[in-house]
Amino acid sequence: MLYFPTITLDRSGSTSLSSQIAVRLRSSILLGEVRSGESLPSTRALAAVLGISRGSVVTAYDQLSGEGYLVSTQGAPTRVAVLLRGDPYQKPPSSVAASSRGQDTDLIDLTPGYPSTHRLSGPSWSAAWRTAAARPIPHTEPPLQGTRALRIKIAEHLRHARGVLCAAEDIVVTAGTSEALALVALALGESRRSGAQPESEPIPAPVVAVETPGYPAAARVLRRLGAILLPIPVEPDGMPTTILEDQASPPDAVLVTPSHQYPLGGRLPVDARLRLLRWAGHHNAWVLEDDYDSEFRHVGPPLPALASLDTDGRVVLIGSFSKILTPWLRLGYIVMPERQAVRAALLAVRRDLPCPVSGVLQDAATELLATGAVRRHIAAVRRDYAHRRNLVLDALSNHAGTTLTALDGGLHAVLEVTDQATARAAVRELLNRGIRVVNLETYSALPDGAAVPAGLVFGYAASTDTGLARALGHIREVTTRRY
Amino acid sequence: MLYFPTITLDRSGSTSLSSQIAVRLRSSILLGEVRSGESLPSTRALAAVLGISRGSVVTAYDQLSGEGYLVSTQGAPTRVAVLLRGDPYQKPPSSVAASSRGQDTDLIDLTPGYPSTHRLSGPSWSAAWRTAAARPIPHTEPPLQGTRALRIKIAEHLRHARGVLCAAEDIVVTAGTSEALALVALALGESRRSGAQPESEPIPAPVVAVETPGYPAAARVLRRLGAILLPIPVEPDGMPTTILEDQASPPDAVLVTPSHQYPLGGRLPVDARLRLLRWAGHHNAWVLEDDYDSEFRHVGPPLPALASLDTDGRVVLIGSFSKILTPWLRLGYIVMPERQAVRAALLAVRRDLPCPVSGVLQDAATELLATGAVRRHIAAVRRDYAHRRNLVLDALSNHAGTTLTALDGGLHAVLEVTDQATARAAVRELLNRGIRVVNLETYSALPDGAAVPAGLVFGYAASTDTGLARALGHIREVTTRRY
Repeated sequence: MLYFPTITLDRSGSTSLSSQIAVRLRSSILLGEVRSGESLPSTRALAAVLGISRGSVVTAYDQLSGEGYLVSTQGAPTRVAVLLRGDPYQKPPSSVAASSRGQDTDLIDLTPGYPSTHRLSGPSWSAAWRTAAARPIPHTEPPLQGTRALRIKIAEHLRHARGVLCAAEDIVVTAGTSEALALVALALGESRRSGAQPESEPIPAPVVAVETPGYPAAARVLRRLGAILLPIPVEPDGMPTTILEDQASPPDAVLVTPSHQYPLGGRLPVDARLRLLRWAGHHNAWVLEDDYDSEFRHVGPPLPALASLDTDGRVVLIGSFSKILTPWLRLGYIVMPERQAVRAALLAVRRDLPCPVSGVLQDAATELLATGAVRRHIAAVRRDYAHRRNLVLDALSNHAGTTLTALDGGLHAVLEVTDQATARAAVRELLNRGIRVVNLETYSALPDGAAVPAGLVFGYAASTDTGLARALGHIREVTTRRY
Repeated sequence: MLYFPTITLDRSGSTSLSSQIAVRLRSSILLGEVRSGESLPSTRALAAVLGISRGSVVTAYDQLSGEGYLVSTQGAPTRVAVLLRGDPYQKPPSSVAASSRGQDTDLIDLTPGYPSTHRLSGPSWSAAWRTAAARPIPHTEPPLQGTRALRIKIAEHLRHARGVLCAAEDIVVTAGTSEALALVALALGESRRSGAQPESEPIPAPVVAVETPGYPAAARVLRRLGAILLPIPVEPDGMPTTILEDQASPPDAVLVTPSHQYPLGGRLPVDARLRLLRWAGHHNAWVLEDDYDSEFRHVGPPLPALASLDTDGRVVLIGSFSKILTPWLRLGYIVMPERQAVRAALLAVRRDLPCPVSGVLQDAATELLATGAVRRHIAAVRRDYAHRRNLVLDALSNHAGTTLTALDGGLHAVLEVTDQATARAAVRELLNRGIRVVNLETYSALPDGAAVPAGLVFGYAASTDTGLARALGHIREVTTRRY
């Protein structure tokens, strides 16, 4: 069956035609106007009907394919994906073989997660701090949720960069992702505290499902704040909701990295997203979306945040400026969902643990966002990272016995190798040569690195081009050896 | 018996003669070279023996009397106080009667705890931020304990301002007192976790003794982080160690404000300090010293911190720049004691909850300390506060039916009134007139404001002189009425 969408275009130019088509098609799919498996018209036919260039339709189809709403197969019509069922999507990356050479030693730190900051200093940076320092100095703490001016600018940034429609009232400024997770862990406890229970009673520990492999710092802070972790082994596309559905006692929350699974790099397809939200709704669980590096997408347009699909008000979006600017700033945010119980719990905790972010930093960040410095910086480093990513691809794709993954977005890569012995020996040998990369098994939330493929994780953003090129040669060399 | 101390003076001028005498006498007393109740030589005799002016000896004796080491009685020789026993000290303040008048309305916020910031903006402030913003921008998080440069400067500040000898290694930079208390509460939990226990087991809740009345924000953050509070009603001098000694199951920690009890203003005499430290040593408890406003002492020299008496390595000193500069900065510190178990627990928590303080703020604060801007600012506002304090004394000492207290140091005053009905009516009526003060009963950590005298608490630092003068007239007026 062929579905022919009714699309009314606004040609005033405020939104691109491709984006209008994508929005309309996405909502048709979500609203059930078009069913899983149905075919769409060819790009040429739809463009002709709408009286626009074919390129806009191709862009819209590509975006929805990237998001998992559509499936394109060479030589067959584009179809609506089988949502809320099966696994209609390809695994992300690639593998293969070749050769190269590294030289020398000099400590090159490729610990993942760090951005490049050399373009950050400059007139806009200095001006932002100068403006912030010139403001009259209040004698109070900053507002609990952060200054209103900063929250307005963060909401604007999220609308443009992440497709998240939120208002200043929805935002809580944080000192970064760890601080945000501490707040959320305590808020989960708060929401579990029964009204009748006396205050001095210990709060029952909340259970949080986490991805494994996953972000070890997140696991540490959640555990430190008293949460009990339920590690869920991820599949190539991300968190498998089936395992959540199989839990006899469902967790209180699930922490996911749907846009770019950390560290494996998968992206959660839209059917899995909907299924996750449905599961959460059924069990009254919170969905914690750690949107840690989604501003940097190298293949296809950035995916909208999971929070943008959330019609039920239970996705807590956690973001930071650590990757966009630098973790040296210690600045992030939570976008609270609609659900009143979630908001009340988060704000109750914030009243007891007041905003730790300096008002001067908040003012400076407001300036950086308002003057467009953040946007320009992202555009500039995105080009840098695309170039570095190509260096990684050139050196390590087609490298026998390994699989290079996680490169569709973000600032790091994963090189899967044949076995743990090889991974461990490679990390050790690289360190001997003055190069720091991380063993993928350290990202496991299970004992002994279980449920994690053998591999190396390394960041390619923070080093210099020459340092990176040299390190890549060594990585290739040590993973070619037999250990 | 007369004790004649052997004192060797260093006349190079690096330390004042009076300070050298005080240091020597204090350690003689603490070391037991001189006993409780023994007489000291007259100031004239000691000055003659040492070959110095009598003024230096008078200053030293006054300081030690203020700290509770010595007792002077008119017409009798100065004696060493009866330490670790009884209560050889006078209650701090005063009372009496009179009349005045206030006019007008306009919101005047006398919420206690806020400093004056109008002298803070200026060339040194701007220069510090300019310098911080001009530094190369690291791509990592700030170091877990804070930057070394800042910690060196904080240690210097504490040595000069608070008599605390510590090194950069002892300091953990925090986002202020609440953040510090969160860290400490979790560290107490960490230290209680038995080695054998699996990580997923909930940590037993630590019990923390707190002063009542006390700092409500501290109680909230401790409770939020899972601590169970044991409220101890304070006596005029501060925390009565006797009540701690009477506990069947002693608390894991005790939170005290020994230099200037918050909010009542008492200062813990040296015998009570020693007794508290002895109790803590006996029960392996932590002593948490909240040293929140000790840089501002209006009567006598500032008291050395309790931490400076701690030979057993168990006092965790918690301080901030909120009163010295502004809480808008969100900057504070912990000074870790010698004891390895305490340090290990604090640092283990800091590894999971990394430093939330922006590196740029840390660099700017380093500049403010290094250039002497902080020292100059303290000196300047100290004069302002002394003047404001005189306005308070002029308006409210000798005010029938009330007792004005807490004015020996800090930025706030307490006006005790006859009963709770009067206090409540006065707070309400002042709010009607556009003046915000706080009811003393809200500082109780017990239900229904128990164990707290009836009174009003108000800050005199943040308002203007004219605003304060007007508010004081109204305070006098509403507390004269019969309700």
